[in-house]
Amino acid sequence: MKSERTTVRRLPERGQYDAETIYEVLDANFLCHVGFNADHGPVVLPTLFGRDGETMYLHGSAGAHMLRTMKGGVPVSAAVTSVDGIVVARSLFNHSINYRSVVIFGVAEEVTDVQEKLHGMEVLTNHILPGRWDEARQPNTAEFTQTIVLKLGLDEASAKVRVGPPHDHEDDLAMDVWAGVIPVFTSTGEPIDASDLDSKISTSPSVQTAKQRWSAS
Amino acid sequence: MKSERTTVRRLPERGQYDAETIYEVLDANFLCHVGFNADHGPVVLPTLFGRDGETMYLHGSAGAHMLRTMKGGVPVSAAVTSVDGIVVARSLFNHSINYRSVVIFGVAEEVTDVQEKLHGMEVLTNHILPGRWDEARQPNTAEFTQTIVLKLGLDEASAKVRVGPPHDHEDDLAMDVWAGVIPVFTSTGEPIDASDLDSKISTSPSVQTAKQRWSAS
Repeated sequence: MKSERTTVRRLPERGQYDAETIYEVLDANFLCHVGFNADHGPVVLPTLFGRDGETMYLHGSAGAHMLRTMKGGVPVSAAVTSVDGIVVARSLFNHSINYRSVVIFGVAEEVTDVQEKLHGMEVLTNHILPGRWDEARQPNTAEFTQTIVLKLGLDEASAKVRVGPPHDHEDDLAMDVWAGVIPVFTSTGEPIDASDLDSKISTSPSVQTAKQRWSAS
Repeated sequence: MKSERTTVRRLPERGQYDAETIYEVLDANFLCHVGFNADHGPVVLPTLFGRDGETMYLHGSAGAHMLRTMKGGVPVSAAVTSVDGIVVARSLFNHSINYRSVVIFGVAEEVTDVQEKLHGMEVLTNHILPGRWDEARQPNTAEFTQTIVLKLGLDEASAKVRVGPPHDHEDDLAMDVWAGVIPVFTSTGEPIDASDLDSKISTSPSVQTAKQRWSAS
């Protein structure tokens, strides 16, 4: 997974290239930021993703600018980041963030084969809400046509991770000021029923699984 | 703040252009994803930011690839996203995410004036840890020189917000499956002392303020 452009140039001790680390970071998130070159310059947009093995699936409306641009097969970069803590040092210079991030380079390709497109939709759905694909009504022809599915290979991806306490200069250790880490994490709350939901219907397994999956990860 | 390229093309009812909304989204976050064109194609990287009025400050090491590329004044795009919930519908097609996002277009310029550079550093520090600039040791000459500060104007920015329950098709409302929203939010934990911290030193005001600021926002 290491190529010239995925080599982490700054702080190389934070660069990690094994697939396991990359997949862990991706599977702890469902939002990525995708960048591509539009006519007027670079564009970065947030979008959802799902992962299946070495493939990342993205989706969107057939009318969306991003997808219209990308389906031609233009190069993209995508980044996925978890923030784990604010690192508070004695010197401002040594302040930092604990985080896990993955940066991907590749060419996003539209998935046109019907079976593969359905598979991509299922991967995306079940990445965010495990098992939801079999609980909800599946796309009808119009919905299927209105949705574009893109795939992006993970063969050119790198992870960068910072963990642990601040690293202060020895001369600063005697300062009378607090140093340490403020943990930051994602939480989920109690699911909120849709106002038009029959009150006899309780949350489904996919909702309970998602509530756990996206909490404190 | 509305230009041709910040016009939200998809779901225009979600596009919001007032400065207040844009600033609220930015001030609820400290991480952005910046995209630019490197020689080999688009690159998206996570980085910290601070906001002062209509200016976003970014920083990094003078050796960092991103900053070396950007300081020449190349066009960039930056996106900031808060995820607020997973929207669970009866149909897979109407699943969504509640979120608040800002996308910025502009040219990142290096801040070279000493006073303005110090100001940018202070803005960035106090955005993440309000008041920390006056608590910690400020940069010495070597640290100041090793740090690059960039500024990016917010005059070409747009916000996109989705709130509320799923919107299912009328024909799907009778389905025997749960629909609603799983709230997602950011939390902070109890600050963890650095192992080399004198146990008599307790957390400073900036740490307590940051703990509140970045919780459940």
